[in-house]
Parts: sequence; C-alpha cells; structure tokens
Amino acid sequence: MEALEELQGLLKKLPGMGEKSAQRLSYHLIRTDDSFNRALGEAIATIKEKIHPCPVCGCYTEHDICSYCSDPSRDKSLLCVVEEPQDVLSIASSGAYNGLFHVLGGAINPLGGVGPDSLTFSELMQRVETGDFKEIIIATNPTEEGDTTALYIRHLLEGREITLTRLASGLPIGGDLGYADKLTLMRSLRGRIRF
Amino acid sequence: MEALEELQGLLKKLPGMGEKSAQRLSYHLIRTDDSFNRALGEAIATIKEKIHPCPVCGCYTEHDICSYCSDPSRDKSLLCVVEEPQDVLSIASSGAYNGLFHVLGGAINPLGGVGPDSLTFSELMQRVETGDFKEIIIATNPTEEGDTTALYIRHLLEGREITLTRLASGLPIGGDLGYADKLTLMRSLRGRIRF
Repeated sequence: MEALEELQGLLKKLPGMGEKSAQRLSYHLIRTDDSFNRALGEAIATIKEKIHPCPVCGCYTEHDICSYCSDPSRDKSLLCVVEEPQDVLSIASSGAYNGLFHVLGGAINPLGGVGPDSLTFSELMQRVETGDFKEIIIATNPTEEGDTTALYIRHLLEGREITLTRLASGLPIGGDLGYADKLTLMRSLRGRIRF
Repeated sequence: MEALEELQGLLKKLPGMGEKSAQRLSYHLIRTDDSFNRALGEAIATIKEKIHPCPVCGCYTEHDICSYCSDPSRDKSLLCVVEEPQDVLSIASSGAYNGLFHVLGGAINPLGGVGPDSLTFSELMQRVETGDFKEIIIATNPTEEGDTTALYIRHLLEGREITLTRLASGLPIGGDLGYADKLTLMRSLRGRIRF
C-alpha cells in the first residue's frame, strides 16, 4: 500500500494534521468522487505557479497588480498595514474598509529572529513618500509582537502629517464577559467609547 | 484570486475542514515548497486509480490481492470481521493479530438505510464455507450498530464448529476512571477478567 502510505505521509506534513487525521482524510479521498480528487490535486499542485505577492502591497494575487491596488474605486488616501497576506482578505471581507493595504510579511520579534530589516518597512516608507495617504491604520495583531511593530511604525512616521490609528481591541462580538481574559477586559476598558 | 478561491472551495469539502481551516491551509500551501505541493497534488489526484478493494477481504490494496490475504505467514484459521477498510490497518498495526480479515463495508443500521443486504455477509459466508476458520473475531465498533451487526453474524454462524469472539470493551489504556462514561464502565465491569 505504498500509494496510501505516501499520501498519508504527505498529508501529515500539513499544519494541524496528525497521524489519525491524515489516515481519516486519506480513506475519505479513496471513497470520494475521482473528479473531486483530480480537481483538488491539480489545485494544490499549481497554486504556487498561479499565485504570487502583489509587487505594490504584498498581498497574494493572480494578476500583475492585485485587485485592491488596481481598483480605482478604493480610497487612495487610506492605508491599512497588516502582518500577513491573509489579513488583507480578513479586513477586506469585513466590509468596513475601502482603502489600500500594505503587507509587512510578519511582526517584529527579536527573540524569533525577525528584526525590522526582514519586514517591508522600507517599501512602506517609499509608498508613504510617493503616495497621498491621510490616514494609516495599523492592523497588526493585538499581541506583543504586533504591538511592538505598531510602535515601530509610529516611530517611523513621526513628524508627518498623517493620522495614525490602530484597530480597536476589546470584547469579541457575541463574546461573554465571563470568558474574556484579563488583558482583553483591560483593553476594552481603556478603549471604552461614549455611548 | 480565482485560483485561491477555487482551492479553498475544494479544501472546504474535505471532512472536518471549515471556512477558516481551508483558508489557513491554502495560505500554508502558498508559502510551502513547490515540490511538496506537486507531490501532494499528484498523490491526491491519483489515489483512486492506484487503490482498490481486495476482491477477497475488501480492504484497500494496490495489488490484485491484498498483502494480508496473500501473506503465507498469516494464520489462515483466524478471521477478523471489521466494518471499514481502515479498521484492518488499525488492527493489523496493533501487532496482536496475525490472521485474515473480512471487511463488511459498514454496520447494520436500519434507520440509516443499511440492511444486511448492503453489507458483504454473503461473501463472508462463502469464505466460511470454503475456508478453514477455527475462530472468527467480530471487531465491529462498540456501538449500537456494531453490536447489532455482531448479533447478526452470530445468528448467521449458528450451529457451526467455529469459535466466535468479540473484541473486549472497557477502559482505554491510559484512560481515567473519572472521565469514563457509564456505558464503558458498565462494559468493563461485565467483562472483568481474573487478575
């Protein structure tokens, strides 16, 4: 059963996929429709040749320039800075943002070996120089690394006529006070808004 | 981003894969090594043409007859009856069994529309007629359907000179009495063994 073992071995290398999940998934694939397997196999095998980072903002795209950067209806005075390409999709699909994006490629994490030089800060500054941004929204994660990165961006943009904002932290919608951790509660108290 | 959306759409159809997991996995595949994607894609696309059920026992194999049925070192007087092809692997890899297998293709479940006719009982009886089995181990799941199926097999084999056994039910090794459900405790009490 080399084919099955090979498939399970490959599946096991996927994130969040253990021995049992890989087994269960491989048996599911044997039972499923062949055309589905072929479509999925083809999609996985070719994804990297179809998708590449947008040379302007760094989010993933199939085109020369991504759909956000090339969309004339988007507000060119707003820039949202995120850590990872997938964050662009999260924010865009919230429906509450219609500006441009900038992907840093991660967050500053000295202990993890990620210094400012390995992120796209110079590209960000170049866009700030040549662009006409009125507001930059820092949408790094509400973690220590994301906060450090936000502070670094504030430092880089000091003295410029650009409004700098950061995504609100607080209780998730549908959440329960009893389940909120102390830090989230603290942030939601500090960031309380007039009602 | 049609390619990415297509990939996510296909991934979402896999069992246990939700919207978020499919997104995370697709972004992982973009970042990962291209040769891995090609190998995984190929393995998924071709698994169904490589693997088929063994015509004798019903477990999955790449060969004409599966490795268990064609292995001369296995004990031909022992037959282990399981529900699904993947159960064969589970039992074989326990290291405690060296006989042959028979895959029923499921368990009797009248409410779910699975009657005895849709399972491989006639093939089982044919193997019992032509074979030389001394013991048949019923290894259906310890569920209502598995128990019903076990009773049905006992009924089918009534009056024959074959020892019929059933896998022991009880506490899982490494388990904790406090976390065991009532039914498992009941079964482990009823099936208690002399120490």
